[in-house]
Amino acid sequence: MLIMRDIKQMQDFSRKVKRRGRSLGLVPTMGALHEGHLSLIRKARHDNDKVVVSIFVNPAQFGPAEDYRRYPRNLKHDADLCKKEGVDAIFYPDAKKMYPDDYKTFVSVQDLSELLCGKSRHGHFRGVATVVTKLFNIVEPDTAYFGQKDAQQSIIVRKIVRDLNIPVKIKVMPTVREKDGLALSSRNAYLNKQERKDASVLYQSLKLAELLTKGGLKATDRIISRISEVIQKKKTAKIDYIAIVDTENLKAQKKVSGSCLIALAVWIGRTRLIDNIIICPKN
Amino acid sequence: MLIMRDIKQMQDFSRKVKRRGRSLGLVPTMGALHEGHLSLIRKARHDNDKVVVSIFVNPAQFGPAEDYRRYPRNLKHDADLCKKEGVDAIFYPDAKKMYPDDYKTFVSVQDLSELLCGKSRHGHFRGVATVVTKLFNIVEPDTAYFGQKDAQQSIIVRKIVRDLNIPVKIKVMPTVREKDGLALSSRNAYLNKQERKDASVLYQSLKLAELLTKGGLKATDRIISRISEVIQKKKTAKIDYIAIVDTENLKAQKKVSGSCLIALAVWIGRTRLIDNIIICPKN
Repeated sequence: MLIMRDIKQMQDFSRKVKRRGRSLGLVPTMGALHEGHLSLIRKARHDNDKVVVSIFVNPAQFGPAEDYRRYPRNLKHDADLCKKEGVDAIFYPDAKKMYPDDYKTFVSVQDLSELLCGKSRHGHFRGVATVVTKLFNIVEPDTAYFGQKDAQQSIIVRKIVRDLNIPVKIKVMPTVREKDGLALSSRNAYLNKQERKDASVLYQSLKLAELLTKGGLKATDRIISRISEVIQKKKTAKIDYIAIVDTENLKAQKKVSGSCLIALAVWIGRTRLIDNIIICPKN
Repeated sequence: MLIMRDIKQMQDFSRKVKRRGRSLGLVPTMGALHEGHLSLIRKARHDNDKVVVSIFVNPAQFGPAEDYRRYPRNLKHDADLCKKEGVDAIFYPDAKKMYPDDYKTFVSVQDLSELLCGKSRHGHFRGVATVVTKLFNIVEPDTAYFGQKDAQQSIIVRKIVRDLNIPVKIKVMPTVREKDGLALSSRNAYLNKQERKDASVLYQSLKLAELLTKGGLKATDRIISRISEVIQKKKTAKIDYIAIVDTENLKAQKKVSGSCLIALAVWIGRTRLIDNIIICPKN
């Protein structure tokens, strides 16, 4: 397995793969790999001749008060996991090479970027959109794999690809969860024992919402207040947002009809966690 | 010679060319082809196995008060010229397909886009950056050809390609001029007889500036006021801007030293024309 830091080296690798008519899958990550990432890697491994995992903690998607510095980094651990999964190459670029001092070009997606997580994480999705575009241009994958846990990110990436005519297929894989339902996230490592216990409330509240809609409740304000009640019972929890939105344009829905995304972000102590489910009630 | 309206068809054409290991040159245009475009096409023809000319009057780079509607369009004339030059394919997409109603993604280049033409053409370079990124993704050329007449555009395109790691080479070819020095432009067709006569003042004033710097004048404010004097003598002329700037970051220079770009935009009657020269005085 190759570990490449150099952008040109990565481009040459990809060009060679494609010139031979082989298919290339990319799993873009920020490292601190867990079973969620591994499920994407396994899918990429299954679908493609060659698999590249990018590991890059992208400064452009962190706000000044966010956890860019303390975000977990452990290349050796990540490389061992990738090797076990049969990854062909890790792309592990340097931030100064990805964003030189005179860097000026940004990709942004109107409207979609300002909603949900975009409200409290200003500039976050511009950073995501920009780095994803850069990675697609460098690696030139046939297919790139994302996790449903970052629902808004997946929707925005699909939108960029469609709008900018980027020649890459996007596949979004289901969220991988702990036994108690907590969605796997590199940020779970920040949680202390009590917080870790309380954190399962995100998924529990989403499951409750699903039950309620199956039971015939359609008014989203009522569903949201029920979710809210459940979360507020946990002392370490503080709600950032709870939203029931269209799965494509992320617009808030008044009534559950057709398929909807229920997404939420909750502070558990000093750690902001997100989760979501898609519900498709029979109308 | 193929004329393709469909984005998917264009992508398939390019993919086929590249799978065979052939080189592909792209000349992006807004149509109304003249000798300036033809010089780019000839260079592309010389350099590449296959040549694509895109013809697309890009609504995203016109302001609401600008000439999007009346911009000259004549596919038959353009296609005849392309055919004569041995072009392999024209890409002639529909604006509604390039920018569907729910279009939301834009590429922007900070700082560079706000200077010179960006000051009076708000949003213009965001439109240019976005369409160029789209065209590069659709056509996937090895090399794309631009004219030095649109100096700021070339500089911004180079910047996007470098910043977003787009795998395309940019070549910028010299401005082609009429006998009296007027830079060829599709917008010259808007000029009446008197205006056409006066329009030669753009290049005349640039040549004067070159002479002055060769004679040892280095203070850019003095050079600019001399250019200004010359232009103001023409009754139909009204200066938008005259600037002497760094050839990469477009920052205004106080003294001519190293190579500089002298760029100007002048209204001749109701037509806004631009021109520029690069001067490299001996220090």
